[in-house]
Amino acid sequence: MINEINIALIGQRFMGRAHANAYRQVRAFFAPPLVPRLRLACGRDEAALAEFARRFGWEEHTTDWHDAVTRDDIDLVDICVSNDLHAEIVIQAAQAGKAVFCEKPLGRDLAEARRMLAAVEEAEVPHMICFNYRFFPAIRLAKKLIDDGAIGEVRQFHALYLQDWGLDPGIPFTWRFDKERAGSGALGDTAVHVTDLARFLVGEIEEVVGDLPTFVHERPLPDGAGMGRVTVDDAALFLARFQHGASGVFETTRVATGRKNFMHLEVDGSRGSVHWNAEEPNVLWFYSLDDPKELRGFRRILATEPEHDYAKNWWPPGHTLGYEHSFVHAVYELLTAIAEGRNPAPSFHDGVRAQAVLEAVARSVKTRAWVPVEE
Amino acid sequence: MINEINIALIGQRFMGRAHANAYRQVRAFFAPPLVPRLRLACGRDEAALAEFARRFGWEEHTTDWHDAVTRDDIDLVDICVSNDLHAEIVIQAAQAGKAVFCEKPLGRDLAEARRMLAAVEEAEVPHMICFNYRFFPAIRLAKKLIDDGAIGEVRQFHALYLQDWGLDPGIPFTWRFDKERAGSGALGDTAVHVTDLARFLVGEIEEVVGDLPTFVHERPLPDGAGMGRVTVDDAALFLARFQHGASGVFETTRVATGRKNFMHLEVDGSRGSVHWNAEEPNVLWFYSLDDPKELRGFRRILATEPEHDYAKNWWPPGHTLGYEHSFVHAVYELLTAIAEGRNPAPSFHDGVRAQAVLEAVARSVKTRAWVPVEE
Amino acid sequence: MINEINIALIGQRFMGRAHANAYRQVRAFFAPPLVPRLRLACGRDEAALAEFARRFGWEEHTTDWHDAVTRDDIDLVDICVSNDLHAEIVIQAAQAGKAVFCEKPLGRDLAEARRMLAAVEEAEVPHMICFNYRFFPAIRLAKKLIDDGAIGEVRQFHALYLQDWGLDPGIPFTWRFDKERAGSGALGDTAVHVTDLARFLVGEIEEVVGDLPTFVHERPLPDGAGMGRVTVDDAALFLARFQHGASGVFETTRVATGRKNFMHLEVDGSRGSVHWNAEEPNVLWFYSLDDPKELRGFRRILATEPEHDYAKNWWPPGHTLGYEHSFVHAVYELLTAIAEGRNPAPSFHDGVRAQAVLEAVARSVKTRAWVPVEE
Amino acid sequence: MINEINIALIGQRFMGRAHANAYRQVRAFFAPPLVPRLRLACGRDEAALAEFARRFGWEEHTTDWHDAVTRDDIDLVDICVSNDLHAEIVIQAAQAGKAVFCEKPLGRDLAEARRMLAAVEEAEVPHMICFNYRFFPAIRLAKKLIDDGAIGEVRQFHALYLQDWGLDPGIPFTWRFDKERAGSGALGDTAVHVTDLARFLVGEIEEVVGDLPTFVHERPLPDGAGMGRVTVDDAALFLARFQHGASGVFETTRVATGRKNFMHLEVDGSRGSVHWNAEEPNVLWFYSLDDPKELRGFRRILATEPEHDYAKNWWPPGHTLGYEHSFVHAVYELLTAIAEGRNPAPSFHDGVRAQAVLEAVARSVKTRAWVPVEE
Repeated sequence: MINEINIALIGQRFMGRAHANAYRQVRAFFAPPLVPRLRLACGRDEAALAEFARRFGWEEHTTDWHDAVTRDDIDLVDICVSNDLHAEIVIQAAQAGKAVFCEKPLGRDLAEARRMLAAVEEAEVPHMICFNYRFFPAIRLAKKLIDDGAIGEVRQFHALYLQDWGLDPGIPFTWRFDKERAGSGALGDTAVHVTDLARFLVGEIEEVVGDLPTFVHERPLPDGAGMGRVTVDDAALFLARFQHGASGVFETTRVATGRKNFMHLEVDGSRGSVHWNAEEPNVLWFYSLDDPKELRGFRRILATEPEHDYAKNWWPPGHTLGYEHSFVHAVYELLTAIAEGRNPAPSFHDGVRAQAVLEAVARSVKTRAWVPVEE
Repeated sequence: MINEINIALIGQRFMGRAHANAYRQVRAFFAPPLVPRLRLACGRDEAALAEFARRFGWEEHTTDWHDAVTRDDIDLVDICVSNDLHAEIVIQAAQAGKAVFCEKPLGRDLAEARRMLAAVEEAEVPHMICFNYRFFPAIRLAKKLIDDGAIGEVRQFHALYLQDWGLDPGIPFTWRFDKERAGSGALGDTAVHVTDLARFLVGEIEEVVGDLPTFVHERPLPDGAGMGRVTVDDAALFLARFQHGASGVFETTRVATGRKNFMHLEVDGSRGSVHWNAEEPNVLWFYSLDDPKELRGFRRILATEPEHDYAKNWWPPGHTLGYEHSFVHAVYELLTAIAEGRNPAPSFHDGVRAQAVLEAVARSVKTRAWVPVEE
Repeated sequence: MINEINIALIGQRFMGRAHANAYRQVRAFFAPPLVPRLRLACGRDEAALAEFARRFGWEEHTTDWHDAVTRDDIDLVDICVSNDLHAEIVIQAAQAGKAVFCEKPLGRDLAEARRMLAAVEEAEVPHMICFNYRFFPAIRLAKKLIDDGAIGEVRQFHALYLQDWGLDPGIPFTWRFDKERAGSGALGDTAVHVTDLARFLVGEIEEVVGDLPTFVHERPLPDGAGMGRVTVDDAALFLARFQHGASGVFETTRVATGRKNFMHLEVDGSRGSVHWNAEEPNVLWFYSLDDPKELRGFRRILATEPEHDYAKNWWPPGHTLGYEHSFVHAVYELLTAIAEGRNPAPSFHDGVRAQAVLEAVARSVKTRAWVPVEE
Repeated sequence: MINEINIALIGQRFMGRAHANAYRQVRAFFAPPLVPRLRLACGRDEAALAEFARRFGWEEHTTDWHDAVTRDDIDLVDICVSNDLHAEIVIQAAQAGKAVFCEKPLGRDLAEARRMLAAVEEAEVPHMICFNYRFFPAIRLAKKLIDDGAIGEVRQFHALYLQDWGLDPGIPFTWRFDKERAGSGALGDTAVHVTDLARFLVGEIEEVVGDLPTFVHERPLPDGAGMGRVTVDDAALFLARFQHGASGVFETTRVATGRKNFMHLEVDGSRGSVHWNAEEPNVLWFYSLDDPKELRGFRRILATEPEHDYAKNWWPPGHTLGYEHSFVHAVYELLTAIAEGRNPAPSFHDGVRAQAVLEAVARSVKTRAWVPVEE
């Protein structure tokens, strides 16, 4: 007999759709030990929510997210809402004994993230943060190569995460531009992803120094009542030192004209290196000093072979996967861990650790100096 | 109130899964005017079929595909089985008044394809062939540019469709290597796709001359009882002349070591050109003589913007789609056309036209000379 | 003491400059056993020739090319003129006992090429044809890999050689558009290069079938006196079978809008494959089944390492070479072979063999059928 | 009649060869108003120097560089030696009234660079620093686009300059690893190039904060007498703020395994952006918001057209140039400026400005905080 897990999803926009899709796809392609049942969708816009629920097959929907944490027939609460609501929902869900799956960044700041971690630990509920980029087959291959020593000791890391959606000064003032609600701009939105990947692939970051420029200082209020003052960063740039001696360079921005979701990572080690770009997500580039000298070169590995994590569950080699598949893989790991009684990874610990780095970057902008990352 | 259409799917392997996925995804992301109801899955392996039905949500399943054409509660029969069964199923389904959606190639040869077309026309049922590559946003953009005259008059076309799954002589002898059941090898399997795209983008082909080499002549029988003789081609290569004067070069192969699903198309016109590759399916490359001379260059257009067909139904710009999405788009067009009382495109006419080209290639191999493509 | 070889160069345009540059650069970077002395430059435009001679350091210049073959103080005659003059000059030079270095195609047709070969053989003078693409370090590496068996038995070869300089109908009618003087169009100009590379990398071609379309049928005469009728092909497309069983596809064209000097080659073997593109000439892509399965991928080998032919004579690794360097390497091989008493490679034999293929393509256009390549 | 300029070159290794080649090539391909005469080559290794002089055509050679500055028949002194000799030679050459052309970095530190600038200004001699990357046609096109406002107001800049020659701990201890002689490591060697390009393309840098890690702390002495202590950086990483508000990220390193001379630049503006990579030096990528929305994409501009600076002096479109050509263009500008009585660009002012940035980076490593760049 098949065990089900009852999901309540809060949020129905970009991330809500990505998560809803993941629950539906994972049961078709992965046969997880716990089958997700799409029980309750929560959102604020009743009409849109009804349509969302109908399309994705949610059994019920509600405009009051508290239902998700108070109803007995919910096992897992999935949080895809604006950053200012993460903590409140997570804490109530945890206290109600629900497993929680939360979008990044965990909280608006480190203190908030820590409260969230404390809550899930105290409640002893499973907790996972949705760092979905960890779950691309090519990134998993990179991780495996690094862990196996294939590139030796890591010395340099860089990440460029370039988007351009923030370019247009006519883009309305939403919660994303409001520090009160978002916590930060590119820092919490995009730098958090590459910070997590840096930790995943290389290790803990010890010290940082950064810059958080804002280029567009006012944006029109959505209701037409004048302009809202942008209180977050348009770009987050920082240097880092890792605990084990590697150096890192990070650039994330919303104003790199022409770049849509260009996330480029490179890890340079003493015996080899890897690089990856989210615009060609099925490919890992790998260079090894073990190759004969005249034949050395970056290998373009199309990570769609049965040997690559997750790939064989989808299509034959060479038939590419896209962005959304990373969420399916994340949900597969979430469900598998819960079924096996383990806490999933990445957990809220990882959310806190990433946020400690971002917090240090923000502090360094105030002190204008290198600052240590809090333990 | 929402109208449903009851689907029976025959076949549960690669293509069966791609189609099943498409029916499920189209209702989540596209809200088609007819909502597909996954009524009946047919396949030969009972255990695998039950699992397939459970995973993808088919209400019923059966190992007798005749149910799909005889049951009254089926509106659309979708054929994802070996080529030798296409004609029989299509003809029975048409006679039973079902809409039909058939995988490529339409038949094993031109005569068979024509019988199938005659059947659906006589029965006056909607018919579509699954040339899914037409439905990548980047290919649709190419089509639009060409139709709008953006590249002028087309002069050269080439298509390379390179795979390597046929390399290993140890791969068992399946129906794909048996002319009796498959009709042909790379010709009907992969050349048919680029032939359709050539017709879609450039126009009708008038004459061809080709080569159909086989490199691995025997393969082990799956039951271990010796070797089976390969009676199909490992590669299909041909030159073509289009009716409106363009020249074409086609190479498709199963033995291009290292190439997984490398489908490269280029259309060169008198004012510009486009090229596209299935390994980077979200990108269209476009060159235009209208650009200032010193700024001319191929533009790498990431066809993930709201302006690009289908893209806005999925994710924000730059968040890539994969292979499977082309099927979702195909199914969306299928359902929309049926709802609107139009026959979908590409239809069995397109299937027959493509097959006429392949047939001409095969004839040219016998005559060792250019041959006209039958009308 | 240093031995010199006295060069007479006939032609001062594109190829004349490429060869003149090669003689000057080879002595700076390669220290060949015979040092080229730039003795005599021949051309028709006196003023331009004087300037050419001054710039490149030719000791003397003349508008009468016969001087090159009659003067005793010339050792090597280098022919960079229109195709209709190749035979006459080569034959006279050979009869005068000069070594000859001739641009491609050897003659306007196979018969002419054979007469040229007969002349140099009878005169027992060193002879080389300038198939400069053989001398890119990355192509040499490809050759070495293939010869060493690194890609196994070759099965498929394709070459795309795409240019667009013939697009504009306003381009004046020069000798290149006149069959009488050029022999052919893209066939002899660009297809000849990839035909030679196919022979170099894969082996002899046995049979071909092709197409030689012309898209622009008239072009303005340079003197303004009306239009000249184009009697050559704008594109040369053909299929080939190699003696050892491989299949080939060739497309060369002057009307591929946006393509400047895009020469793409791919050799697919039973154990691996290589590909190369002249727009990124320092890079060879190599795929090998010997790599572990999950790490297989095309390696982007930057052939600028000391291990790569010619590379260490130039710059440190990663400092790229361009188009012109291939001529320097060709001249180095020419001078070395002469110094060592060997005939250089590629010789006029290679010129004749390539031309036999082109001739067969042209014949196939008349017979509209596959034709054997003459021995 | 043609005016000549008499050159003395000091240094015969990598840079000496690049400069010698430039003088020879510029007269063949560019017809500069002052024709360089290769008068005197200076170097320490007599045998190698004699060979160098013979190959490149230097009329005389000497192991005493003082000859270059004391002889009356020298007009221009070109300095391609280790950094510790730059100042002494430049100052003596200037005092002797010679024009000077100096490799980068100008001095070992800012103070030394300033003394050099003062000397050439006091002596009123022409002075140029060899920031050769400014002279790639694609970089010139980028400069033109930016200056013309094609990308709007610049907001983000990043430069990655990745090499791996410093990886191997067995590489001997040369002057490049000795702060006393080199001044710094990657900072003065490679960061200086991208710092200059940042200034050239974007403008002055106001503030920086950086990191200068060393990974290999000891290297074998060339004489076998033990190990030398490395006192310079293996990598130079920094963040920058430009005067006009843009933000910059810089990574240069000698330990990025697999990267040979990977210099990637990106300039993101409010209306468009450009990027460029030294491994594909003929290509500029350009994105513009002026393109129609559905056709936006980075254009791959092959800067080999007659419209592109310097390109028409070489080969037809698509026939690529390599690394060395940038030096030919630099020398062309040097000779032209001198002939026209202007000081060439980039001048020692540019050398000092770049060095002020590097000096600030080095200071920031000590203070561990952002520091202003000295005026």
